[in-house]
Amino acid sequence: MNKALVVFSGGLDSTTALYWAIDRFDKVYTLTFSYGQRHVLEVEMARRIAQRAGVKEHGVLEVDLTQVRGSALTDPSLELPMNREPTRGGIPITYVPFRNGVFLSLAAAWAEGRGIPHLVGGWNAVDFSGYPDCRGEFLKAMEDAINLGTKAGVEGEGFVIHAPLIHLTKGQIIALGLSLGVDYSESISCYQGREIPCGRCDSCVLRARGWRQLGIMDHLVERLLREGKLDTWGIHKNA
Amino acid sequence: MNKALVVFSGGLDSTTALYWAIDRFDKVYTLTFSYGQRHVLEVEMARRIAQRAGVKEHGVLEVDLTQVRGSALTDPSLELPMNREPTRGGIPITYVPFRNGVFLSLAAAWAEGRGIPHLVGGWNAVDFSGYPDCRGEFLKAMEDAINLGTKAGVEGEGFVIHAPLIHLTKGQIIALGLSLGVDYSESISCYQGREIPCGRCDSCVLRARGWRQLGIMDHLVERLLREGKLDTWGIHKNA
Repeated sequence: MNKALVVFSGGLDSTTALYWAIDRFDKVYTLTFSYGQRHVLEVEMARRIAQRAGVKEHGVLEVDLTQVRGSALTDPSLELPMNREPTRGGIPITYVPFRNGVFLSLAAAWAEGRGIPHLVGGWNAVDFSGYPDCRGEFLKAMEDAINLGTKAGVEGEGFVIHAPLIHLTKGQIIALGLSLGVDYSESISCYQGREIPCGRCDSCVLRARGWRQLGIMDHLVERLLREGKLDTWGIHKNA
Repeated sequence: MNKALVVFSGGLDSTTALYWAIDRFDKVYTLTFSYGQRHVLEVEMARRIAQRAGVKEHGVLEVDLTQVRGSALTDPSLELPMNREPTRGGIPITYVPFRNGVFLSLAAAWAEGRGIPHLVGGWNAVDFSGYPDCRGEFLKAMEDAINLGTKAGVEGEGFVIHAPLIHLTKGQIIALGLSLGVDYSESISCYQGREIPCGRCDSCVLRARGWRQLGIMDHLVERLLREGKLDTWGIHKNA
């Protein structure tokens, strides 16, 4: 029995990773973190997407990262970059200290008691090359640490971390998702945390660029237009 | 400026590690985890010990490990071993899946925003040789992962994990603490989570054995006797 746990925010990348896992493993689980992020709506959207995808079990873990300083995603006193151009060079202010280390550690802990050996995530090293905890090198080191620090690693078959999107551009990620039948209409990405994308934060800009590369309208924008929540002549007219 | 963060439960080992850090570093911080353990009293006792030791800042992080299955420390449906003999062979039921991986990840995240490069803990590979996440091999792998996955690791000087007690017996740990002036009277170890030790769980048995090796009465037992909370002719008469 091949079981996999997807570290799942409900954003575009991890939704693609979820469908990749469903295509590949017999039983798929999802785990979402409520960590004091600005975009708390993502926790609810993640639940909906996981439910629709028919996962075996969807977990939500509370972990308080608001005491972790220095990230615009968890510290309201820091400003989000709103440049309509993704941040380039160095590590962006949206970097949350060791977030993926924390998430992977908790995922391993959650997975171990359920006998799940495969850990999957939508980590990507192309668009956000500045995040140190999104690189393959880090993920490999984390896999080693998990296998040395768990019962499953020492006595059992051990854990394998899968990062199927690590080298894909946003356009390629969306194309992969579409080929797997993903419906992105409930997947939100905006750092502001609203259902209606701000269109200006790094995450919105990169997402819009990805769909534009494919010449397709973002499923989310399509739904918001259909539901009358979005002005076609507003800031999203190029999405 | 030499700053260190001690992963701090308030138990005998991490209290010793705290005083070791105070002896060695200029500024010392403590971080305690409230993770749904049976012994929640330890969170309050840890705060008191840290305060008395005069740490720069004492943090308490909530992280919900009750959804992590399979450990007698977080799952009330599992029985604690009460053998008056420490569990030998294999990994004990008190093993919490990847607990030290989770704690170290959160410690690194908390430390990074405060510019703290040294992470210290009371991990010990002698008494609980069955815990995979208490071995030097694991701690080294975790240090590598943290240095590959953080801004401080990639752009700065990086993190160093210190495990000063890793190869010491319980008696040696207590002797080290006494030489550093540690007062153990508020440090609790019992898995049952009460101030008055049950005297029968693995943790109580190992602690009592350590003091016996030194031929000294446990500071905690001494205080409880003084306060009239303990019957000298009870189960603790050999402590």
